[in-house]
Amino acid sequence: MRELRKDPVVGRWIILSSDRRLRPSDFSEPDPEAANGGPDSCPFCPGHEAHTPPEILAYRDGGAPNGPGWTTRVFPNKFPALRVEETLERSGEGLYDRMTGVGAHEVIVESPEHDRDLSELEVPQIERVLLAYRERILDLQRDTRLQYVLVFKNAGRRAGASLEHGHSQLIATPIVPRVVTEELEASRAHFRAKERCVFCDMIDHERRDGRRIVLESDRFLAIEPFAPRYPFETWILPRRHRAGYETAEPEDYAAFASILKETLGRIRRALDRPHYNYVLHTAPWGGDEGDSYHWHLEIMPKRTPAAGFEWGSGFHINPTAPEEAAEYLRGIRS
Amino acid sequence: MRELRKDPVVGRWIILSSDRRLRPSDFSEPDPEAANGGPDSCPFCPGHEAHTPPEILAYRDGGAPNGPGWTTRVFPNKFPALRVEETLERSGEGLYDRMTGVGAHEVIVESPEHDRDLSELEVPQIERVLLAYRERILDLQRDTRLQYVLVFKNAGRRAGASLEHGHSQLIATPIVPRVVTEELEASRAHFRAKERCVFCDMIDHERRDGRRIVLESDRFLAIEPFAPRYPFETWILPRRHRAGYETAEPEDYAAFASILKETLGRIRRALDRPHYNYVLHTAPWGGDEGDSYHWHLEIMPKRTPAAGFEWGSGFHINPTAPEEAAEYLRGIRS
Repeated sequence: MRELRKDPVVGRWIILSSDRRLRPSDFSEPDPEAANGGPDSCPFCPGHEAHTPPEILAYRDGGAPNGPGWTTRVFPNKFPALRVEETLERSGEGLYDRMTGVGAHEVIVESPEHDRDLSELEVPQIERVLLAYRERILDLQRDTRLQYVLVFKNAGRRAGASLEHGHSQLIATPIVPRVVTEELEASRAHFRAKERCVFCDMIDHERRDGRRIVLESDRFLAIEPFAPRYPFETWILPRRHRAGYETAEPEDYAAFASILKETLGRIRRALDRPHYNYVLHTAPWGGDEGDSYHWHLEIMPKRTPAAGFEWGSGFHINPTAPEEAAEYLRGIRS
Repeated sequence: MRELRKDPVVGRWIILSSDRRLRPSDFSEPDPEAANGGPDSCPFCPGHEAHTPPEILAYRDGGAPNGPGWTTRVFPNKFPALRVEETLERSGEGLYDRMTGVGAHEVIVESPEHDRDLSELEVPQIERVLLAYRERILDLQRDTRLQYVLVFKNAGRRAGASLEHGHSQLIATPIVPRVVTEELEASRAHFRAKERCVFCDMIDHERRDGRRIVLESDRFLAIEPFAPRYPFETWILPRRHRAGYETAEPEDYAAFASILKETLGRIRRALDRPHYNYVLHTAPWGGDEGDSYHWHLEIMPKRTPAAGFEWGSGFHINPTAPEEAAEYLRGIRS
């Protein structure tokens, strides 16, 4: 079973993907995917391409498809939450709404090297990863059933990663996720009230204030947000207004790679290799968010075991002021 | 520093409570509170009352305040996220809004016994815990600066608990948390459209359908919700409409204790003592939600390491269908 279901009260969609585990009784078994025996048994390492589904995209120095020689490689998740092969069907059942599990769930292997964090790769290699995100978003936009592509990275078990070889993921969905919708609507409301992008206002404010800036380059700004959910939560924003990640200027991707490497590297040194997530926030295609929304990346280190009740309450308690975190990160030597 | 801050885009409030840890550099140290050396070193065990702040409420078989003899004991959190002693002040700074950290953060120790899960206590003892929630909500309502009391339980480290002795917590806030507001507004919209409570509609639907029912008693229903975020997520709802937990009928608390014990016990056996959270969802006092909202408890087992990206995306992937989970839980012998 693979379907989308909507909570009848708050309208939150979830993905039910019940063939990812077979039965409830399997649930107390350890996840077989969690086994990490190093490069020899890693399905993401070069030479083991047959252990993954066939590649959708690969940047190569040489070699044939689905063999070694790649620098960045994209393929469908072996246990996909959603699949493009489904037919889009919507149905109701009393109060409830559901949709077939149409979509895509892909893995982006960031480099051939097994145990390198993204921050340890060279800038051109990180740029290839960022260009792979862009290329996949552009390709998935052609599927008219889909409305959004969510790009994210889970690094480390505490952040939800089951394999240690550095990788990102994307999930393309036939609906715009609720968290994205909320952000889009809030940005639109700000624009209607002020004729300005709320993120541009934030960038202006932070650059004048200075206390929450981690790094600044010609094209990007890395800040600790004013109201961070997690200690050392860090956002990277392009300084020039642009709603969609995939339509950034060609030069932006190298500049983004550079500030991303430096920011992740500092967080890594500050917190001693924390597990972390990041999520790319970008406008859906074909919307009217050109003026009001502003793409950015939100990085969330996960040092403490998930502070449980926040899941249910939406209330985050953060013991570290962003001003202190930013000062600390600014002081770290590269 | 202890203050509430609002994200300028989506309006999410967070609590900054930065004296809970001293400096960013302390952050990579293990949490000293996480040490669990058994009853001898447990500040929540009888005889160790001097290791906690003075009690606010205790149900006692005997003994003097702040000494042994209690069956359920409530005191302020030693490292409170919010404190009643602050003065409520609101201030702006450009785009940003903040508020002083007025509120309350209390611990409810569920029994004198160190290593009993709530499901292992006798029904009358669980009822005392539930009555303590009620009594604290009623008392905090008298503080006119406060708008909401969020009662929750973190059981086990993976669910955010730092001490193993069974306890619940409450946080009283000068604002209504966003997740609560969303639920209230959605319920009100349903009521306006249909003149019916959405939770009453859900209860009717589930009782007719049957597939997602875990347990049913005269006064309560335990179900797997149609769109669960987590495997074995379980909700307990009173069958009769009532917006506020603290105004339930006197007989409800014993009946709630009984179904809560049985439900938690079955989840415990099904998933082999999972870590879990629960959050009490109840209407704020003095609102107009009497007809449209319906209090309930949401239980969220945390078997897998937090599926990271869901934090950032709001998109939950659940590998276990609620119909299968309910069938499995129904089949477990008490």
